[in-house]
Amino acid sequence: MQDEQVIIDGLQYVNWDRKLFEKTRDSGINAVHVTIAYWENFREVIANITHWHRHFENNADLIMHVRSAEDVLEAKRTNRLGIIFGFQNCSPIEDDLALVQVLHELGVRIMQLSYNNQSLLATGCYEENDPGITRFGKQVIREMNRVGMVIDMSHSAEQSTLEAIELSERPIAITHANPSFFHSALRNKSNDVLKALGESGGILGFSMYPFHLKNGSDCSLEEFCQMIAKTAEIVGVDQVAIGSDLCEQWGYETLEWMRSGRWTFAADYGEGTAANKAWPKQPHWFKDASDINNIASGLAAIGMNSEEVNKVMGGNWLNFFDHSFEAKS
Amino acid sequence: MQDEQVIIDGLQYVNWDRKLFEKTRDSGINAVHVTIAYWENFREVIANITHWHRHFENNADLIMHVRSAEDVLEAKRTNRLGIIFGFQNCSPIEDDLALVQVLHELGVRIMQLSYNNQSLLATGCYEENDPGITRFGKQVIREMNRVGMVIDMSHSAEQSTLEAIELSERPIAITHANPSFFHSALRNKSNDVLKALGESGGILGFSMYPFHLKNGSDCSLEEFCQMIAKTAEIVGVDQVAIGSDLCEQWGYETLEWMRSGRWTFAADYGEGTAANKAWPKQPHWFKDASDINNIASGLAAIGMNSEEVNKVMGGNWLNFFDHSFEAKS
Repeated sequence: MQDEQVIIDGLQYVNWDRKLFEKTRDSGINAVHVTIAYWENFREVIANITHWHRHFENNADLIMHVRSAEDVLEAKRTNRLGIIFGFQNCSPIEDDLALVQVLHELGVRIMQLSYNNQSLLATGCYEENDPGITRFGKQVIREMNRVGMVIDMSHSAEQSTLEAIELSERPIAITHANPSFFHSALRNKSNDVLKALGESGGILGFSMYPFHLKNGSDCSLEEFCQMIAKTAEIVGVDQVAIGSDLCEQWGYETLEWMRSGRWTFAADYGEGTAANKAWPKQPHWFKDASDINNIASGLAAIGMNSEEVNKVMGGNWLNFFDHSFEAKS
Repeated sequence: MQDEQVIIDGLQYVNWDRKLFEKTRDSGINAVHVTIAYWENFREVIANITHWHRHFENNADLIMHVRSAEDVLEAKRTNRLGIIFGFQNCSPIEDDLALVQVLHELGVRIMQLSYNNQSLLATGCYEENDPGITRFGKQVIREMNRVGMVIDMSHSAEQSTLEAIELSERPIAITHANPSFFHSALRNKSNDVLKALGESGGILGFSMYPFHLKNGSDCSLEEFCQMIAKTAEIVGVDQVAIGSDLCEQWGYETLEWMRSGRWTFAADYGEGTAANKAWPKQPHWFKDASDINNIASGLAAIGMNSEEVNKVMGGNWLNFFDHSFEAKS
């Protein structure tokens, strides 16, 4: 499966409609991990899933629900965009261990253990202190390992991330973040995390969300690609991928929901500030999904061979999914 | 109000029926803080509240809903048992800060920030590490202070408890626990916590749940009363009270729910062990609520004067409630 040439985006949060499905499919992307929960509880995430069921019905010529690595290849064969369900938080399982299997059966394949704040499972990257994985968190990691749901620590804090890597019997993902050595941000990852991730067979998707980039929206394609090459030296070239964190067609209210959920009455500006609170401007070389091939060109331009470029663009995700999305036999 | 002679039990979790209402009322107890949530979410706790609405309708001659200190006196005047709603966990507010006011309007007056495990607000006493109050927790403390809902840290861990005392602008309660100096248990409280609690005007309810007692079920009344006297020296005689933690008329399934909730498939034995997992036997001098006056006699027997005994038996709770249950004017 590693030899298949596919393009996979490890994280997008866009306001999907038929036009966007078409644009993304036409970009050459074969599958995308879409966010279907930030703060939603179980019942609310079921509503989001049923919303996707309507999308699948109404756009069957353009998209399909991806539950396995094989499904990504099926999406490619039928010239459709594969949709992988994922949560940026564990709120949909509420306090109920049994909901992991329920949501896996409904097609959810990736779940973050915490989103910025402390969750019932792990600590978020904006908390002051990080005690690591909780009692409930240890149970959930075991259950996710059992059913085949990927642990994602993109928005989690350092100690929790290191413990998740250690506790999980299956490799974990950081679907969308960059190394701290490239740009220091609470959301980016230390070399310690990168090393532990790589050694455990985990995978990192590089983000093009400006707050994660050196020089923000002005980061150059070359700088971005050099960061990928340098990170590959730390975690291994089979362990790096793209998780664009592309956000598109949303109003400010959606950003407020992502940042403040229901946990505060005051405004929380997340990675922004009061003076700079809006959605950031994308880098000119990745305005949206239709620019995805600029990354491949950029990687080639800095000297990566085509085999390596294919790995970063999707081969590594495909291989990772192949070992992650089902119960171990 | 401090001169009123009342008996208040700061925590019971019993399977109420008309016979128990009558027995408890006849014991001389004027008001009891009843637990209406361990792991329940918002919708589930609403069901518990409506269950109490039926109790109030069907037993209006025996019980009444207490929302204020004044209501305790009204219960005494009308020879009824006052019922104070409280949660042993923050699960009913889910991730929604706005639910604090909603639940206060429905009569909830006391909420623990965590129950044994890590919650979205604070750490429980059975977690390995305790990072203190979370970002969401800080918002909730402010909101509970605003509307007049008492912060209870009975099942919380040390650092979280110290921070809650520090962050809260109003005194907090530990409704049911004992000092660690009396019996070392994860649920009991260190002298540091006791001192901080006392200095801040908080209050401690002493527990007669055998796992919190020296020698368990064999703890003597005198030992229990000496512990109260010694603790009063640390926190102040105006800051000690009774929170019996009486559990009655429940099957083992209820204990399993309290211990394991929905967060583990395995058995969790809480304060018990696999070999000793059942409900513990009550001390012979406090088999149930009808023995409540044994405490008063025991306190007198070790030399407390009647004014002090009245404070411990209910006067301190009444005074605390008088400053805690309503929005500050």
